[in-house]
Amino acid sequence: MAKHITAATTVITNPPTAAAEIDRVLNMMMRESRPVYVGLSVDIAYEMISSAPLASPITTSLLQNNPELERKVIAEILSKIERAAEPIIIVDGGAVRHQVLSEVNELVELTSFPTFVTAMGKSGVNEELPNFGGVYGGAGTHPGVKEAIESSDAVLWIGNFPSDFNTGEFTTDVKEEITIDFQRFSVKVGEVKYNVAMKYVLGSLIKELRQKSVSKSPRNVTWNPFPVKTFSDSVELKQEFLWPSLGSFFRPGDIVIGETGTSAFGLCDSKLPKGVMMFNQTVYGSIGYATGSIVGVGQSIKESGGKWKRPILVTGEGSMHLTVQAIADMLRWDLRPIIFVLNNGGYTIERLIHGKDASYNEVAIYDYSALAKALGPAHPAKYHGPVKTCGDLTKLLKEPGFGDAGCFELVELVLGRLDAPGSVIKTGAAIDEFNKAKVQKTVPGG
Amino acid sequence: MAKHITAATTVITNPPTAAAEIDRVLNMMMRESRPVYVGLSVDIAYEMISSAPLASPITTSLLQNNPELERKVIAEILSKIERAAEPIIIVDGGAVRHQVLSEVNELVELTSFPTFVTAMGKSGVNEELPNFGGVYGGAGTHPGVKEAIESSDAVLWIGNFPSDFNTGEFTTDVKEEITIDFQRFSVKVGEVKYNVAMKYVLGSLIKELRQKSVSKSPRNVTWNPFPVKTFSDSVELKQEFLWPSLGSFFRPGDIVIGETGTSAFGLCDSKLPKGVMMFNQTVYGSIGYATGSIVGVGQSIKESGGKWKRPILVTGEGSMHLTVQAIADMLRWDLRPIIFVLNNGGYTIERLIHGKDASYNEVAIYDYSALAKALGPAHPAKYHGPVKTCGDLTKLLKEPGFGDAGCFELVELVLGRLDAPGSVIKTGAAIDEFNKAKVQKTVPGG
Repeated sequence: MAKHITAATTVITNPPTAAAEIDRVLNMMMRESRPVYVGLSVDIAYEMISSAPLASPITTSLLQNNPELERKVIAEILSKIERAAEPIIIVDGGAVRHQVLSEVNELVELTSFPTFVTAMGKSGVNEELPNFGGVYGGAGTHPGVKEAIESSDAVLWIGNFPSDFNTGEFTTDVKEEITIDFQRFSVKVGEVKYNVAMKYVLGSLIKELRQKSVSKSPRNVTWNPFPVKTFSDSVELKQEFLWPSLGSFFRPGDIVIGETGTSAFGLCDSKLPKGVMMFNQTVYGSIGYATGSIVGVGQSIKESGGKWKRPILVTGEGSMHLTVQAIADMLRWDLRPIIFVLNNGGYTIERLIHGKDASYNEVAIYDYSALAKALGPAHPAKYHGPVKTCGDLTKLLKEPGFGDAGCFELVELVLGRLDAPGSVIKTGAAIDEFNKAKVQKTVPGG
Repeated sequence: MAKHITAATTVITNPPTAAAEIDRVLNMMMRESRPVYVGLSVDIAYEMISSAPLASPITTSLLQNNPELERKVIAEILSKIERAAEPIIIVDGGAVRHQVLSEVNELVELTSFPTFVTAMGKSGVNEELPNFGGVYGGAGTHPGVKEAIESSDAVLWIGNFPSDFNTGEFTTDVKEEITIDFQRFSVKVGEVKYNVAMKYVLGSLIKELRQKSVSKSPRNVTWNPFPVKTFSDSVELKQEFLWPSLGSFFRPGDIVIGETGTSAFGLCDSKLPKGVMMFNQTVYGSIGYATGSIVGVGQSIKESGGKWKRPILVTGEGSMHLTVQAIADMLRWDLRPIIFVLNNGGYTIERLIHGKDASYNEVAIYDYSALAKALGPAHPAKYHGPVKTCGDLTKLLKEPGFGDAGCFELVELVLGRLDAPGSVIKTGAAIDEFNKAKVQKTVPGG
């Protein structure tokens, strides 16, 4: 069964070839950056085999590009850029997942092209740069940002990942003929696809650009990538206030996990300082992944030798319930996460897509102040909240020691049942439209 | 992918044939009593189709047997029984899952043959009958019970399900030539397999037996199916004391779920009153299933119109942690389960199989008295415990109102880290032997 969802599989039945088989599959895993499956039964696991193959390390780098083909691709990219009046860069999920961020950031600083991210590419570039232009998600995008992207005449789209949640339900509007689409194993210039790895292409492109600087000066970012509305302190906490405010809480060394749903979309409206790493899940959209993920993040931070500092989880309460026992592990392994729980009476994003008042969008009502005490009574933990107004949040964010308690911290944010980031409301409507349109197309005579 | 683990699959793409396709798959599900897969995409789900096929009900009964073949099988079974000195009946998991329990209980009362169950068949027959002989699990079986089974010369094994956990790791010892193996679609008499459904064979066999009673009088059950040791009140709570004691707590109308591990094995030592239904999972052995299952049990009881009374969960704490959020659902849907949690500092059964002191067999330490308050603060709930001694348990079981609080009740049983039912200790050793033996066989020259 694993064959359908892996890059390679093997079931080890013959000890003498076991090492070679396992290496074959692990090499494939590293090269493809995709999951593999190794079946090892209890009896085989006890076998003694030669350690000789350990001398050949697993391949962790990609095969080199054909130099001639790569030169041709670079020339085409340069020509496309030079002929363009307003070239831009979009840093997408594939850039993060396929580890080309150092190349990407060099390119962004070198060209000064207005640079954007998608939800999945968020934190991929330094948002403090003057040429950072904002977050793109099709229909859900802030108007100034949307206009700048969709009026461009050359788009370097690095690691394009056009999933439903990453494109505002396929409402992005960038024409293929003006796009240079960078992927792990290919680069597509307009309609023509070349089998070259983007990692090396980006490296060579940077070298070329250093030698002959691009003639045209790029467009300045005149719009505000993170528009902020102000609310008085007594107003009930709103997502429109929450996300921009949360930006001020983050600091270099934070690793942030945004749960699928309003959290992932909302965090797109938080301006990140340089040196923050953020992940969300806009591919499979499985809720519950985030609370589990922060355990891994916390452990990685512990092992990073001080390079990374705080594991931060932002999640809806419905998603958190699915994997809430992970809190017990955060406590017993002393991982010290800071958790923001959006308590808004159910699956808000689902309500906005379908079933506004449906009982299946309700979830259990927990006592968030009691969770750590129930799941890890022996370990220190702090509860903050409930945060009910904009003023409550402002006060908490200014509180000395908040986010620095050196132990598990949980913040309960109470939000309206149907309150959501603007991008979610727009995207929710787009999804509903999209589903209805599919029906229209398939209804006989419809 | 679903094809590998289902009896039938379909992905609906064509509205006019959708109803027929779905019916085909549902019929297969009912006939095979196995899972099926129906793929229905959002656009197709909105289609209007004719309701005419609803007039043909889904087939819920099996196809009739070939009458001639069935007569032959009955004759062979009767001949086998008549020639035997000590015929017995074993009621196994397949009897429960394939819904032949009314036939089975009739057969057991009619023949008075000593009757046994396996772990997976537990609660399949009335344990108050004088001919109930005990629970069979190979090496883990009580000596008197084991002797009675393994010395029999004709075994009617109904719904035989020879999985590892259901056979004490394949240590059952009943010869094929003396076995009549009843399955959903076949009956095997000795070495010869006939394609007849056991349900109809059992029905016809009962009719035959009513007409001409079996000549030999069966062996009496002279051994104690549930041997009990006594402990003084001050002794630390032990599994050897726990399981027999728990038998006295159960009453008609209870539905009991035993979690995989010590709970499922231990409950084999609890004598059940007539009218208790019990489930465990000795096929896939997935821990965590039980806490989720009791939600379904609770809802079924609510809908049973008073026929069934109390949902009772017995689980280790490590297993419960995996699906602990189900407690929130039990509370908010007012399902009123009674939960016994064996708090014994980790995965005891795993420690007994492999890794006695391994850190990976440790689990988080919860405050069980705080769980309901954290996961459903608005709902009534009772905590009992911690129960630390045999006397504590005796006292609790006699407490007026215990198990009748009309709300969620949780009992925390504190047990030794390596304490386990005798059957688990014996089976754990058998599993270790089994794995080692497999290695011996495969090591070159070993």
